[in-house]
Amino acid sequence: MSDAWTKTVEVRFGDADQAGIAYYPRIYDFIHQAMEDFFAGQCGASYPELITERGLGFPLVKSEVEFNTPLRFGDTATIAVTTTKVGNSSIGMRYRFLVGERECLDARMVVCCIDMATLEPVPVPDDLRPGLEAVLESEA
Amino acid sequence: MSDAWTKTVEVRFGDADQAGIAYYPRIYDFIHQAMEDFFAGQCGASYPELITERGLGFPLVKSEVEFNTPLRFGDTATIAVTTTKVGNSSIGMRYRFLVGERECLDARMVVCCIDMATLEPVPVPDDLRPGLEAVLESEA
Amino acid sequence: MSDAWTKTVEVRFGDADQAGIAYYPRIYDFIHQAMEDFFAGQCGASYPELITERGLGFPLVKSEVEFNTPLRFGDTATIAVTTTKVGNSSIGMRYRFLVGERECLDARMVVCCIDMATLEPVPVPDDLRPGLEAVLESEA
Amino acid sequence: MSDAWTKTVEVRFGDADQAGIAYYPRIYDFIHQAMEDFFAGQCGASYPELITERGLGFPLVKSEVEFNTPLRFGDTATIAVTTTKVGNSSIGMRYRFLVGERECLDARMVVCCIDMATLEPVPVPDDLRPGLEAVLESEA
Repeated sequence: MSDAWTKTVEVRFGDADQAGIAYYPRIYDFIHQAMEDFFAGQCGASYPELITERGLGFPLVKSEVEFNTPLRFGDTATIAVTTTKVGNSSIGMRYRFLVGERECLDARMVVCCIDMATLEPVPVPDDLRPGLEAVLESEA
Repeated sequence: MSDAWTKTVEVRFGDADQAGIAYYPRIYDFIHQAMEDFFAGQCGASYPELITERGLGFPLVKSEVEFNTPLRFGDTATIAVTTTKVGNSSIGMRYRFLVGERECLDARMVVCCIDMATLEPVPVPDDLRPGLEAVLESEA
Repeated sequence: MSDAWTKTVEVRFGDADQAGIAYYPRIYDFIHQAMEDFFAGQCGASYPELITERGLGFPLVKSEVEFNTPLRFGDTATIAVTTTKVGNSSIGMRYRFLVGERECLDARMVVCCIDMATLEPVPVPDDLRPGLEAVLESEA
Repeated sequence: MSDAWTKTVEVRFGDADQAGIAYYPRIYDFIHQAMEDFFAGQCGASYPELITERGLGFPLVKSEVEFNTPLRFGDTATIAVTTTKVGNSSIGMRYRFLVGERECLDARMVVCCIDMATLEPVPVPDDLRPGLEAVLESEA
């Protein structure tokens, strides 16, 4: 995971269920927030800039997530973000959540770059590509 | 889909993003709610009964979702719920969201039946099995 | 409360905190959903029609809520909706949540009718007024 | 506001409605998160410590919020937290949200310190009092 871009997230009171474990729709919110922060921190374009000023959107096309160990109230997770594909319009993103050495989940999400006005696919902008490609996983 | 158990869900104001499309973490909440209602309506055990009285939990182990067409603010979707596996502790659930004839998404979710006190897997209770098996997809 | 418009809401797994009590931001979501359903059921205009077709919005201006007894996971609450004021642009709404005979909370919310394009106040449309006025609380 | 404890919060994509304005239940989530961070940063006790280790809870008893100007997608708000009362079991908290010089909202929330096991009120612990009292608003 040497090349991953990382951020941390805290599991808060409002994220946890009655057993003190993160309610899974909240985890998908963490994943979306990680994508937003990745665009800003790794690709140099804040999400409000992309959405509001440039009129782009990144709807989810496909999602595969393995939940390995629970994410609990009070945990601080490191989210390691990499890319698995940088296509014309589509981007394969991967998010691994770690609490210390423990992997909680591994999420692979394919998003499509669209024009928010028409909802039609458009090419991933050139200025985002270096950041996306810098964390592209090499094929094993 | 003749054997599916179905419920409907409305995409509300608070579910939609700036393009009027359901923010995907909200869709996972719809899926969880569909599971809750499926247990009550198809298996005869309300979710509060399962969780609070019987001390069971159903955490998500694996999720694969294909998002085909957008779910929009104001849409009423029919969620068709089937099972793909009824194992000892694990249950494969499938949720297809349709708006009219249009399929919006197809979600396959594997959950594990656990004891909420220990978080250890326990067998799926016998009284839930007939309902789960009645919507089991036949292998093609 | 003889004149109130009512709907019921279930406190679901994802609404409850670790003590099994509704996390309060979720209660405000119930209140917003009750407003949406009130407009449809009592005033004859669905919220998607108001927002998407007619370009109106109803942002919250002021909120006063008393939380009397807890709303718990598994509770089905009846929300009794009345109005406390029907002004030119502003509407005073009141939402009381009851579980059986037990009052859980009493919420007074003032919203302002705006044009979603300009975010400027506009008069409450005439077709909504009879429904709003039919549940107007008489001054004591 | 010289004595307030402050934190910042970003209005994210998932917080905004179709007009790009924070959906108000999300604002109440920001308020809860500000309380959590205030306990940690100002009173020296993290929320997981208070809830999980010490078995305390802080349910909302009363809430009064004035929404003055919109909180928009992309805004970074400073939340200025003060106390208006430090009683035996009850705490009056105040949260003002500012975007630059612009005040977005002013929230007064009364919470009660309870034992999470019995849900009965208990005294606010002594170790929290100095932090709470240091930001107590003087009466005008």
